[in-house]
Amino acid sequence: MLRSIRESPLFPIVNPRSIAFFGASNNSSAMGTTILNSLLVLGYEGTVYPVHPRETEVQGLRAYERVEDLPEIPDLAVLVLPTEIVCDKIEECGRKGIRHAIVVSGGFKESGVEEGRRRQEQLVETAARHGIRFIGPNCIGVANPHLKLNTTFLRCEGSPGFIGMASQSGSFVTQMFNYLDQYGLGFSTAFSVGNEANIDIVDCMEYLGACPHTKVIALYVEGIRRGRRFIEAARSIIPRKPIVAYYVGGSDTGKQAGFSHTGAMAGPDPLYDGMFRQGGIIRASSMTELFDFCSLLGNMPEPAGRNLVIQTHSGGPGAEAADVCGRVGLQLAELSEKTVGALGSLIPHTGSIKNPVDVTFSKNPLDFFDSIPRVLLEEDHADILLMYLLMPTESVARTLARLGVPKEDIERESGTLINRLCDGIEGFLEEYKKPIVGYTYRSFNDDFVRGLLARGMPVYPGPERAVRAIEALVRYYEIRKKIHPTGD
Amino acid sequence: MLRSIRESPLFPIVNPRSIAFFGASNNSSAMGTTILNSLLVLGYEGTVYPVHPRETEVQGLRAYERVEDLPEIPDLAVLVLPTEIVCDKIEECGRKGIRHAIVVSGGFKESGVEEGRRRQEQLVETAARHGIRFIGPNCIGVANPHLKLNTTFLRCEGSPGFIGMASQSGSFVTQMFNYLDQYGLGFSTAFSVGNEANIDIVDCMEYLGACPHTKVIALYVEGIRRGRRFIEAARSIIPRKPIVAYYVGGSDTGKQAGFSHTGAMAGPDPLYDGMFRQGGIIRASSMTELFDFCSLLGNMPEPAGRNLVIQTHSGGPGAEAADVCGRVGLQLAELSEKTVGALGSLIPHTGSIKNPVDVTFSKNPLDFFDSIPRVLLEEDHADILLMYLLMPTESVARTLARLGVPKEDIERESGTLINRLCDGIEGFLEEYKKPIVGYTYRSFNDDFVRGLLARGMPVYPGPERAVRAIEALVRYYEIRKKIHPTGD
Repeated sequence: MLRSIRESPLFPIVNPRSIAFFGASNNSSAMGTTILNSLLVLGYEGTVYPVHPRETEVQGLRAYERVEDLPEIPDLAVLVLPTEIVCDKIEECGRKGIRHAIVVSGGFKESGVEEGRRRQEQLVETAARHGIRFIGPNCIGVANPHLKLNTTFLRCEGSPGFIGMASQSGSFVTQMFNYLDQYGLGFSTAFSVGNEANIDIVDCMEYLGACPHTKVIALYVEGIRRGRRFIEAARSIIPRKPIVAYYVGGSDTGKQAGFSHTGAMAGPDPLYDGMFRQGGIIRASSMTELFDFCSLLGNMPEPAGRNLVIQTHSGGPGAEAADVCGRVGLQLAELSEKTVGALGSLIPHTGSIKNPVDVTFSKNPLDFFDSIPRVLLEEDHADILLMYLLMPTESVARTLARLGVPKEDIERESGTLINRLCDGIEGFLEEYKKPIVGYTYRSFNDDFVRGLLARGMPVYPGPERAVRAIEALVRYYEIRKKIHPTGD
Repeated sequence: MLRSIRESPLFPIVNPRSIAFFGASNNSSAMGTTILNSLLVLGYEGTVYPVHPRETEVQGLRAYERVEDLPEIPDLAVLVLPTEIVCDKIEECGRKGIRHAIVVSGGFKESGVEEGRRRQEQLVETAARHGIRFIGPNCIGVANPHLKLNTTFLRCEGSPGFIGMASQSGSFVTQMFNYLDQYGLGFSTAFSVGNEANIDIVDCMEYLGACPHTKVIALYVEGIRRGRRFIEAARSIIPRKPIVAYYVGGSDTGKQAGFSHTGAMAGPDPLYDGMFRQGGIIRASSMTELFDFCSLLGNMPEPAGRNLVIQTHSGGPGAEAADVCGRVGLQLAELSEKTVGALGSLIPHTGSIKNPVDVTFSKNPLDFFDSIPRVLLEEDHADILLMYLLMPTESVARTLARLGVPKEDIERESGTLINRLCDGIEGFLEEYKKPIVGYTYRSFNDDFVRGLLARGMPVYPGPERAVRAIEALVRYYEIRKKIHPTGD
């Protein structure tokens, strides 16, 4: 285990004070230029030195003909170059004294041809000679939104978050920027590991284990080479933060696809299942599930047990949630007399004071976000609250109309009220220290839903994803109790 | 089996020329008023006669004190009344000669108390005396968007569609209006069956089997009373259209929730599993999956087999799709030499001409929606095409920029080009008669994605849902081959 995050070879790679950039030009369609622009657009505050054989200025920055001309030794070199010159440039970086690099260029071992394999060997050997640690080749780069660092070709959308990602697919870094933003999530730091010729996914996981912005680690796995080290590293991290992994090589077709993608060796599914289990890693069955689990694991406190209480306005959505609970081994809390009594005055007689608690539509709809969840959170038998959110923003607007608020004031008043109710739920999270999770079938373009997501309350499209994530949360704390922190 | 849709007791209920409406007033917060407004807002073109003891006009319509005063015998009565007067009003409807009703009112058997049970018996007996067929009580009504009929309390959003729904939860009618619209889907006709005191879910399924607007039937099931008839009816429908069911009572917790919801008896999961299997019904494991399956079953032609070809721009998303294929028993088509040759000129050397076909990002991005899918659809070994849609609208805009289209024209030009490309894919569907399915991780607020959905190409958030739906499509045609049409 790392004693300090600064011990990791990845520290300078995702926290560089200065970067030598190879492969950007004033040709806007070149990949290197696109990547340099991603970096500049996000507002990276360190120094960037474009290195270009002919240009004196690249994208508004002073360019240098040779890396040896740079006025300092940059912390990091980023190489987006034709395969055949990568090795020479690494050699020049080494001579300059640069010790860390990201090699975006492809055409190495993953090409499947002998020349590519040979070039990769040569790259590894050159780097080793200079003590250079590098990520790649054939990777998409890294993102550390907290430092406004993004060396990938896609714009990093949304706010910095708490999910640390190490991925054997570059797409699952870049293509998740927008995806995560939809759920109010973001990366703390994300690595595309590429061919792992020098730094591998285990190194990334160890870095993320020590990273203070990372609350949960997400892995996309096509194949692990250092199996034993992977398990040991995971076990040392689990007592501090959860790790979730999606392994794609489990099925024959997945194996085939993964293999042609990075040249990694996928293994039989039970092998990986065993490895994850030994490491204390929660396994996800898709990318969607990977981030569903991360959202809840990073946002919510430890639940005291497996008992849920479900709050709904209508039977079907409550029944579906209850059904999934049964299938994944979660229980519905039995409500105490005190709770039943307290709900009696809040729920109309057509409602159901059982669990799922079906409050129907009558009486004061604002209770749904206020008095009713409070009663359910007070319930000692309930460890987790799951709330169905039909169309909260419209409910609020309708309630205001009924209270006689003039039409022209409703939008403003409704915004204020939604903020207050969302703040209230945030307050419940702090006060009761019980996980609170929402679900809806409707679009996430709802101010109330966005407000809850922004305050760290996970909301899922449909109860199945919510309940599976809750089960993963419960399971993580069960696993953690069994794994003793390794001496460090 | 119905010889004609007009034989169904539900025909006048969802195709009424005139409606007697009980329970609406000029009090805008009353449920009856809300429902009447839903009906009027959607633009129902038949005659509506509000019946109200005191008002002479209700929501701008002439109101009648007693149903006997109406100038004609309406096809349908809708009752949204306090429990205690429902039976009397049904009696009056019967005397007037009305033979069909929707009883929205609750407080009957589902209340769990003796009085409710007794009232329901009385309602059944009164209706029977007059030969009245009715849906409910304790139901949320029906929607037939093709006729602009919506007797539920929520606005029916989006366009009429091809999904016929019979639901033992009213929420799963109303709360799916917006949900389906997000996916470019809509109901043909939807029934909330409530307590099924007279008309039950089997009747609804038979109606939908005969309904010309319905291409696929969706069932939300908490418990089936007429098991044998259910199986027989399903088997008679399957040769003409697929049926998908989500059964919520399978787990103990689901059973518990479903029971308290409608008072239906849920049974053990294997019983229902067997019933669905005998009926040739595809089983879904959640509401999301129910509609995922419906989308593909209603939109796509019969695939020739289980072999997929996956088109992607990047490895990870292709590998995930391949992995799910393996897990659900679909195969990746082996590409013939002809296909490999044709792709060779379209895909850069860093891409992968295997299956998944990884076209990467270089060369002409527009090929992705045009020449490349054409080559893959020409492939005899591939029965189904699955396309990854990274961010098609942005790709189109970027391509136009590179082609030198001035900035101010890009939005318009991009709209035109997107339309043309979407039309092209629609043309492929007609030309090749092979299922084409898309997936993306990004938001569905993308013009290209909306354009494909509008043209009937299903797009899913993530490959897992896409592949599971494809498997259901394949399975339906396998089942159908085994079920011979029952003589009718």
